[in-house]
Amino acid sequence: MKEDLYIVKIGGHVIDIDSNLKSFLSDFSKIEAKKILVHGGGKIATKIGNKLGIKPNYHNGRRITDDDTIDLVTMVYGGLINKKIVSSLNAFGNNAIGLSGADANLILAHRRPIKDGIDFGWVGDIDQVNHKVLNDFLTTDQLPVIAPLTCDDNGQLLNTNADTIASEIASSLADKFNTQLIYCFEKNGVLKDIEDDNSLVPTINTQAYNEMRQSSLIHEGMLPKMSNAFSALERGVTNVIIGHSKHIILLTQTGFTQCTRINL
Amino acid sequence: MKEDLYIVKIGGHVIDIDSNLKSFLSDFSKIEAKKILVHGGGKIATKIGNKLGIKPNYHNGRRITDDDTIDLVTMVYGGLINKKIVSSLNAFGNNAIGLSGADANLILAHRRPIKDGIDFGWVGDIDQVNHKVLNDFLTTDQLPVIAPLTCDDNGQLLNTNADTIASEIASSLADKFNTQLIYCFEKNGVLKDIEDDNSLVPTINTQAYNEMRQSSLIHEGMLPKMSNAFSALERGVTNVIIGHSKHIILLTQTGFTQCTRINL
Repeated sequence: MKEDLYIVKIGGHVIDIDSNLKSFLSDFSKIEAKKILVHGGGKIATKIGNKLGIKPNYHNGRRITDDDTIDLVTMVYGGLINKKIVSSLNAFGNNAIGLSGADANLILAHRRPIKDGIDFGWVGDIDQVNHKVLNDFLTTDQLPVIAPLTCDDNGQLLNTNADTIASEIASSLADKFNTQLIYCFEKNGVLKDIEDDNSLVPTINTQAYNEMRQSSLIHEGMLPKMSNAFSALERGVTNVIIGHSKHIILLTQTGFTQCTRINL
Repeated sequence: MKEDLYIVKIGGHVIDIDSNLKSFLSDFSKIEAKKILVHGGGKIATKIGNKLGIKPNYHNGRRITDDDTIDLVTMVYGGLINKKIVSSLNAFGNNAIGLSGADANLILAHRRPIKDGIDFGWVGDIDQVNHKVLNDFLTTDQLPVIAPLTCDDNGQLLNTNADTIASEIASSLADKFNTQLIYCFEKNGVLKDIEDDNSLVPTINTQAYNEMRQSSLIHEGMLPKMSNAFSALERGVTNVIIGHSKHIILLTQTGFTQCTRINL
């Protein structure tokens, strides 16, 4: 019987408001199993970037990362947000350690190649997660808190999607642990109608997912998250759950229904 | 016979110019013994702070750290500088891991009390270094790279002098290792005349230090560094050396004379 491991990803909406973040971290601290927290960036980077004269530039919802922007996200994701989360978690009695993909050679990536004329700049696609070092941290009861930054083998830092990092980390540890991947955001799960909180889809399997995609029933912003979810399941992750950050404790309980459970 | 451990501190002048930093890190990588790197902040924080409308405010050479400034230094020290150093070191074949004092509960501190009417704001005075976790990293051949930030037991991040962090870390590991504390900066060592590179003082002991202080023969900016140096020696650190960052490899060799060696 493998030990449980929760890989929880929180996004911008949880991070952007200090009181939301504190409340989430207090709840998250109460999960007694081994756990890893992956955080996104959110609006703080854009806000600070605006003050520094760095204009955000997106293609299909993904930030194009130029020289100034990689410095910006390294500061904000790897410094400000990561250290605030770590220091709060430790005040709640944890032994959290903040890491980017560069630290301890945790996540090796390469710069995304130019495709269809689109150059995302300093954006990383993941080659490999150093699951051995993560396992060492977990074994010594440390709580890894991971910022969405990776590194190539030339020492170039790369901006990397936090959903993908969470999926890759969960997959890399699936041999060793009973891995549960939980995507937290500001909705109860996948909604048929993004404006209607009662339109929650409680379970989605591969067939339903394909049908929903073809009939454009899934909000475009959810597609990469879904793709990461299925990828994790295919590589041995036990459960993938999408739910509201305020339900983080309930999301670890099998009977809870106010969420979307993804199955193959 | 205890194993050698080098605790090396680099300051602003090494960090501010990319090519200087790369060259230093390349040399530093060649030190084959166990090592820890502590870095300061330098002018980058002030430059970014200026763009963000955060005005630097100093008292006796030490930054007064208000709410905006602690966020600024958390971003710049803990994020930008720390991750750039880590990713460069790893490209040179190391297994560096970037840490602030908050990570893994590494350095517990308290906010400096108001004294003589001076409130330094979010500045930390160190209570304790978690030498056990540092020893774990060193044992697994990781190279800790430490940003000058600490944390109190309420999860408040605190700005903390990098010279002091290096001294406290070296002292905390002196029982276990033959600890060598090396302060690197842009001069060959302590100079009698800061304008004259030929006025190097090759060795300073306690008596000489007191005489130099009384006759104001030491540049004011060197006083905290000297005080940290003597404090480390009093707590069992084997050697304290002050020298030029470009000599980092030579500074680990006993016969090298273009530096200042501090003795009790």
